[in-house]
Amino acid sequence: MDFSSKLLENAVNEVSRLPGIGKRTALRLVLHLIKQPAENTKFLSEALLHLRNDVKTCEKCHNISDTAICDICNNPKRNAEIVCIVEDIRDVMAIESTSQFNGLYHVLGGKISPVEGIGPQDLQIESLVHKIENGQIKELVFALSSTMEGDTTNFYIFKKIEKFEIITSTIARGISVGDELEYADEVTLGRSIVNRIPFEQSISR
Amino acid sequence: MDFSSKLLENAVNEVSRLPGIGKRTALRLVLHLIKQPAENTKFLSEALLHLRNDVKTCEKCHNISDTAICDICNNPKRNAEIVCIVEDIRDVMAIESTSQFNGLYHVLGGKISPVEGIGPQDLQIESLVHKIENGQIKELVFALSSTMEGDTTNFYIFKKIEKFEIITSTIARGISVGDELEYADEVTLGRSIVNRIPFEQSISR
Repeated sequence: MDFSSKLLENAVNEVSRLPGIGKRTALRLVLHLIKQPAENTKFLSEALLHLRNDVKTCEKCHNISDTAICDICNNPKRNAEIVCIVEDIRDVMAIESTSQFNGLYHVLGGKISPVEGIGPQDLQIESLVHKIENGQIKELVFALSSTMEGDTTNFYIFKKIEKFEIITSTIARGISVGDELEYADEVTLGRSIVNRIPFEQSISR
Repeated sequence: MDFSSKLLENAVNEVSRLPGIGKRTALRLVLHLIKQPAENTKFLSEALLHLRNDVKTCEKCHNISDTAICDICNNPKRNAEIVCIVEDIRDVMAIESTSQFNGLYHVLGGKISPVEGIGPQDLQIESLVHKIENGQIKELVFALSSTMEGDTTNFYIFKKIEKFEIITSTIARGISVGDELEYADEVTLGRSIVNRIPFEQSISR
């Protein structure tokens, strides 16, 4: 791309460094900002800078939070003995939106991924082991995505904690509610047959 | 969406005000920035602020430029008597990348669109008429997109300038080079038959 302005080129280059945003999309976004009042760009830039410079993570669960201890960890009504291991804040938000989980979370901050250069030491695994050693946790719910990296991380954590006497569980994999069986992939359908549950249990929810 | 952090929520809201970016995408982009070095966010914010505050448009063609007169208008090798009317800088970049046009541009800054509240007074039409009155232009090439808004704008400008003795032309519409006839829409194929050109002309390019 040949730009008529260095300022424009610079802005497009910076925006296109964001994941999933190419040069064309970046140009479209930047031209939109130029057409809008200057305030909008100011608000956007300030919001990003404030977030990046002042963002904190909860000391207990490592979720993104404005306070030292997040609202979930601080909530006395929640069951602190059940902890759900998730990858990042998006998973916390997804599970919270179901209103079906009343325990706490432990946000790893990613998955073990040799390809991306993420090892166990880059994730919040030590502090999880620490919590278990202290006897704070009775049940650990594994809720990482079922990919190669997710399974590797699950296995790594499981090996680290199997010597402790706690219950471990993993979220159920199966056919989505409302999905037709014929369109489901074999692995998911297979798992949902192997891990079938008593019929009464399914209608009680 | 229920955010655990006001800073995060604010940043996601600002990013999702950009066109074509929803809350989920905004969250993904913002989380990416958090994981990256703080410098990256600084560079991004500064690039956007600099652009928005210091961006200039060429006094002659109204294209985005860092100087009062852009490089194209300043180039003595270009034919100042042929002017191509386009909507915005993206069209200039697209035509420039073909290396087939040696005239100057006139960037309108949009199209007449009652739906979006854009009238002729919001576009750089007066200055175009002014250029023609001054006798600077011999040929005017219309290169707006062939949509309802583009056609309306074309017609409005044409009515304004038809009293002047200049050549007006419009870029050729037809089947794309390399496209198969059977997949072309009828309007385009119809136009390409009505506006057929001498065979010799097609192979001389």
